[in-house]
Amino acid sequence: MTPSTLSNLVNHQIRLAARPVGMPKPTDWSHTTEPVAEPAEGGVTLKTLALSLDPAMRGWMNEGKSYIPPVGIGEVMRAGGVGVVIASKNSQFAVGDHVSAGFGVQEYITIAQDEIKRNGVFKIDLRAGTLTQWLNVLGMPGMTGYFGLMDVGIPQPGETVVVSGAAGAVGQTVGQMAKIKGCRVVGIAGGAAKCEWVVKELGFDACIDYKATTAGVSGSSGAVRAGLKEHCPKGVDIYFDNVGGEILDDVLARINRKARVIICGAISQYNNTTAIQGPKNYLSLLVNRARMEGIVVFDYAERYHLAIAEMAGYIKAGRMKSKEDVVVGLQTFPETLLKLFNGENFGKLVLEVAKA
Amino acid sequence: MTPSTLSNLVNHQIRLAARPVGMPKPTDWSHTTEPVAEPAEGGVTLKTLALSLDPAMRGWMNEGKSYIPPVGIGEVMRAGGVGVVIASKNSQFAVGDHVSAGFGVQEYITIAQDEIKRNGVFKIDLRAGTLTQWLNVLGMPGMTGYFGLMDVGIPQPGETVVVSGAAGAVGQTVGQMAKIKGCRVVGIAGGAAKCEWVVKELGFDACIDYKATTAGVSGSSGAVRAGLKEHCPKGVDIYFDNVGGEILDDVLARINRKARVIICGAISQYNNTTAIQGPKNYLSLLVNRARMEGIVVFDYAERYHLAIAEMAGYIKAGRMKSKEDVVVGLQTFPETLLKLFNGENFGKLVLEVAKA
Repeated sequence: MTPSTLSNLVNHQIRLAARPVGMPKPTDWSHTTEPVAEPAEGGVTLKTLALSLDPAMRGWMNEGKSYIPPVGIGEVMRAGGVGVVIASKNSQFAVGDHVSAGFGVQEYITIAQDEIKRNGVFKIDLRAGTLTQWLNVLGMPGMTGYFGLMDVGIPQPGETVVVSGAAGAVGQTVGQMAKIKGCRVVGIAGGAAKCEWVVKELGFDACIDYKATTAGVSGSSGAVRAGLKEHCPKGVDIYFDNVGGEILDDVLARINRKARVIICGAISQYNNTTAIQGPKNYLSLLVNRARMEGIVVFDYAERYHLAIAEMAGYIKAGRMKSKEDVVVGLQTFPETLLKLFNGENFGKLVLEVAKA
Repeated sequence: MTPSTLSNLVNHQIRLAARPVGMPKPTDWSHTTEPVAEPAEGGVTLKTLALSLDPAMRGWMNEGKSYIPPVGIGEVMRAGGVGVVIASKNSQFAVGDHVSAGFGVQEYITIAQDEIKRNGVFKIDLRAGTLTQWLNVLGMPGMTGYFGLMDVGIPQPGETVVVSGAAGAVGQTVGQMAKIKGCRVVGIAGGAAKCEWVVKELGFDACIDYKATTAGVSGSSGAVRAGLKEHCPKGVDIYFDNVGGEILDDVLARINRKARVIICGAISQYNNTTAIQGPKNYLSLLVNRARMEGIVVFDYAERYHLAIAEMAGYIKAGRMKSKEDVVVGLQTFPETLLKLFNGENFGKLVLEVAKA
């Protein structure tokens, strides 16, 4: 495609129209169209093929300081994705190159030369993994899981690792890496089918269905408490937390001495209209001389290529799987995003915007 | 004193009569007397001179697993202290030696040979510090503050260190050590007089009075929020937490990247009759890639002598102070203990049982 044909294209976009209160509603979004701009000297135009939908998006929609500024009202919703170069005035990128980039929830993006680095555009090699794997185990969630487990958790053979959101993108990576490192791995996920898949397909030692009703144990997290007791007879050495809330408290009650609790997210709390629920059992950190530590993936950017090479090798060797839940259609974004918060996604949630 | 005269002595004791609900009441204690047993071969009899009263005692009174078993109903209340050997059938200890030991809240204790190590009896040198300093900066609270700050906090020159319970035993040690290590040190304590003392006598850079009423800021911790903003303009790198509750949340809201939050205690929560208040702002650990870690002093027993030698040197050189709040009389124990929870103690709380 030459630059002169770009003017025929229409770029469909989804913008943040209002800051959601609780769960995002259809009226929190606006659907817009724009022409596709031609790249200036040194710039590129990319076509979106697939977008990564992640729990962190909910945080970006809120006002206030975080590890990254919020999406402004009226701006195209922030989203990472994979796509293809359709016009280039930059010698580093050729038309047809596949790239990972901060596309936003839209069909096309034209990026100026001095924005390419800040946007995080980089070429991806489809021999190392499929397009959607580059959003999953080989993408940001995979990097988050890898560095959170390896650098913050520091797993030792024989230790027991528990990970919540086990069927999600980060959870898949954490659990499979922990197995490769010789740990006993127990997942927590919602629903019998997901749990079965986590054990049979991903090779976890066990998976606790937090939605199960457990006879004789009251409270919504009775199943988690019972499951931890059953499946972690030696206690918990590493807990990789993607969910927060009651489940975090349940695991804190069973950690071992010198345990590591990696705080990666708190999806149970992201749509709260009341205050975040703090971990009531945090004094278990004192009793057990344990550590709770946060992780933000961007800190490890200089080592992404090493983790990608390692995990692409495991995928090739059949030691690691990368499961994506692909929903088709840019316009479905508002309702597709909610699958994350309802726990409906089965594998890493990906929005397919165009066929490769 | 020869063993044969021990039989003339009466040992007054205070025992745990009931597990307190909320703040301990007079009826939770029983006052008993016993004869003093003569030591068997290899054993010693000690006379209590002073006992250390500590927030941790409240935890020992509760049922349930912790870092140490609870005190049983009917047992002499557990307490560390300093005293003197009055009878010895052990070549390691001579009559007249001063020792630190797990005396319990009583006037005398006879310890069998095979219990001496487990009890933690060791000789103290009154040239290194006074009797009460051996319960403070040179004792368990000092060791807790020293190793919590140095091994978990790892202070770097120029960093900002905040410590709650700043006028207490642990807080004094933490703040003074952090100053010696080149940090900016901000205490949190209750009352203008304590805060003034913390700054003028102990040399902290500032001290926030959490009991102050601050114009224009609502809520009980308005003074803490305003004080942190004023006195920690570069944010907080290390927070040494002795109190938990709202103050922990207030500090979490101001931590820096890679901050260390040392969980030493949670005195604000020890007399709760409802659930512990978990830190609502714990996701600040994620945003700031920060670490919250518990410390239990016993883990550092093999290095106590090094910390004692270092801090005794600072005391001798006038670089460190050790302030104790001494209350006289074993029988006052039940009400004296409450001073800790009412924030009435001014310096490390010590119960003088007998004159040295």
